[in-house]
Amino acid sequence: MAIDYTYRVQIPHYAGQLARVATAIAEGDGLIGDVTTITLGREASIREITVEARDEAQADRIAQVVGALEGVTVLWHRDRALIRHEGGKLTMQPTRPVTSVQDVRDIYTPGVARVSAALAEDSSLASRYTMIGRSVAICTNGTRVLGLGNIGPVAAMPVMEGKAVFYQQCAGISAMPILIDTEDADEFVEVVTKIAPTFGGIHLEDISAPDCFEIEARLIEALPQPVMHDDVHGTAVVTLAAAIVACRQAGLVLEDTVVGQIGLGAAGFGIAALMVDGGVRRVLAADPNELSHERAIARGVEVVDMETLMAEAQVVLATTGRPGIITADMIRPGQVIMALTNPIPEIFPDEALAAGTIAELTVESELVPDVLDPEVHRSIARAVCEAAVASGVARLERAPAGL
Amino acid sequence: MAIDYTYRVQIPHYAGQLARVATAIAEGDGLIGDVTTITLGREASIREITVEARDEAQADRIAQVVGALEGVTVLWHRDRALIRHEGGKLTMQPTRPVTSVQDVRDIYTPGVARVSAALAEDSSLASRYTMIGRSVAICTNGTRVLGLGNIGPVAAMPVMEGKAVFYQQCAGISAMPILIDTEDADEFVEVVTKIAPTFGGIHLEDISAPDCFEIEARLIEALPQPVMHDDVHGTAVVTLAAAIVACRQAGLVLEDTVVGQIGLGAAGFGIAALMVDGGVRRVLAADPNELSHERAIARGVEVVDMETLMAEAQVVLATTGRPGIITADMIRPGQVIMALTNPIPEIFPDEALAAGTIAELTVESELVPDVLDPEVHRSIARAVCEAAVASGVARLERAPAGL
Repeated sequence: MAIDYTYRVQIPHYAGQLARVATAIAEGDGLIGDVTTITLGREASIREITVEARDEAQADRIAQVVGALEGVTVLWHRDRALIRHEGGKLTMQPTRPVTSVQDVRDIYTPGVARVSAALAEDSSLASRYTMIGRSVAICTNGTRVLGLGNIGPVAAMPVMEGKAVFYQQCAGISAMPILIDTEDADEFVEVVTKIAPTFGGIHLEDISAPDCFEIEARLIEALPQPVMHDDVHGTAVVTLAAAIVACRQAGLVLEDTVVGQIGLGAAGFGIAALMVDGGVRRVLAADPNELSHERAIARGVEVVDMETLMAEAQVVLATTGRPGIITADMIRPGQVIMALTNPIPEIFPDEALAAGTIAELTVESELVPDVLDPEVHRSIARAVCEAAVASGVARLERAPAGL
Repeated sequence: MAIDYTYRVQIPHYAGQLARVATAIAEGDGLIGDVTTITLGREASIREITVEARDEAQADRIAQVVGALEGVTVLWHRDRALIRHEGGKLTMQPTRPVTSVQDVRDIYTPGVARVSAALAEDSSLASRYTMIGRSVAICTNGTRVLGLGNIGPVAAMPVMEGKAVFYQQCAGISAMPILIDTEDADEFVEVVTKIAPTFGGIHLEDISAPDCFEIEARLIEALPQPVMHDDVHGTAVVTLAAAIVACRQAGLVLEDTVVGQIGLGAAGFGIAALMVDGGVRRVLAADPNELSHERAIARGVEVVDMETLMAEAQVVLATTGRPGIITADMIRPGQVIMALTNPIPEIFPDEALAAGTIAELTVESELVPDVLDPEVHRSIARAVCEAAVASGVARLERAPAGL
């Protein structure tokens, strides 16, 4: 797994010196990313150079090689992610600052009492006069975090904060991480139900299967607002979209293919079920855990063994959490392989490509639009809004802001 | 109770016209606040004029009087607090925007996995690499909101959002309102305990007595982080400070006075107990609810009847939630009266003053510093930090930012 390091380096300030440093990094087999100038002095400059390394040992060697250059000093080198996480990634902010006595009278006493009194009369006003309608709880117990497994709620916090950053940046929604310190499904449901009035929606994240299915079903039953397990539905939606594009690029039509899903955990089940819903002709799935089979079969998925799946599927999707379990000899030429385990996939693109597949399609940027393009998110919000109104699920009282 | 209205008014744009409108508002017995110019046209301007009125009927009459002026149109008039609450008062924001692929690699995958892995190894790193150390949960069930009583959690949300605005603006802390939909103390404690790992501190708000005392005590016992019931401790701290200043202005020394506390709910108990802790010679308290007595007596408070209290106390504090229960004939000349029920106090300053007290001291701005002055909050933070280190409660590893 690649790690991005920042090297803060003092370099003599004349032509050719940065090139000398870059060459040394290349000799250490590091891949250079961003270069940022921190200070420019008369004789020396200080730069922060991002370098992708395989591991800490390689990163340390690169620091030695660069530091050995005459006139060059490596002030420090450190994992970029740790630097970027200092102090956390989220902050709760007033929508507008409070700068005058009038502001205090409006947002707190005495004004707030009139708003609370109005809500006590008619609780539907809460969506208008509070943040509730624009907020989502990101709830986790940390039992299944990324490829890290059960690391508990606190260690899961950076992932929850990251999700919340995207909620605000992409969709203008205030998402609050809520760490729930229990591995008991009943307790989890109880806690979320009790705090649910705070939020317009409930986003479940990184909860292990099969508890996640029960928790989600019971919360959908119990609560009036939308409830979604991101690892099931979020992953499935993006995967379906990516698979449609991948097939198009490969000259296939997804609906007419045989799709094979390896792994029937939260993500795998969600993907397989959505592939069925999406009209795919045959959806196969393989998972050594027999407890996962019944749920998939009930949703129209054919459960097979791994060999059958690899032999019959034209599109292979893998969400196993087990890096490297697909080997090059298992792959047939022409197969579309989407190895989705994060951060280390079931097979790396280079290996899959050597096996004669169209594995270059697994380069994410070719399959899904730019996640940082605001127009992408506006388009999605528009489409969801239209679909919700058209299907009768929602009624549009005012045009949503920004759409 | 005064209500601030905004009047959006179209006024002919030549000299003397705003004066004409102001005169009409005065004739309607309205008190003018801010005047903001919205548009300036060739022939007319549109202004927003804030007017304090007693009630909606008076506000409507003012609109009629102003609208009857030749050339003047009242486009609308509306409660300022409602306008200011549109969409809510809080928003969760990224500490830094995500603008590049490198940002995504740093804050989400693959970088976030390294941070989570580090936290799984050593959970004490959470205070450094997540928002947990800078966040507070504002937990309520809405059973005792301002002077409104038991209006439930959702109607309490505007108050919780207001508190959170002050947390960020005054102290740089991210506070999340958490509405807890239960009136059962056990359930409340259970829910807060399960979500507590998300937060650096727990702030309890607007929970009715006596449940609030049990809830607070059990949470302090169960949780490692600070737990505070604002209505008990927040109110008590501010009241003690204000009483010290009031006594100083009246030529008294608080410690040498007899203090009388009317009402032994959450706020009243907290004030009485802190007055004892603060070294006040005698602290009397009156409350018709006998269940409240034992707790106060155990903390060194003398429980008396209302007549005795008014006869013996030099400083009278009231937190009864019952507007108007102190009448002018109950007050002795020279008494310091702090009638704290919000938004309508036990006695209005004008009435108390007619009774010959030093009631002008209840003008808040004279007793406590400006809540919007950042230096006030920095001073408090510095003092708390020093006291925590000096008392051995905390150890200072790095100088806190901004102090």
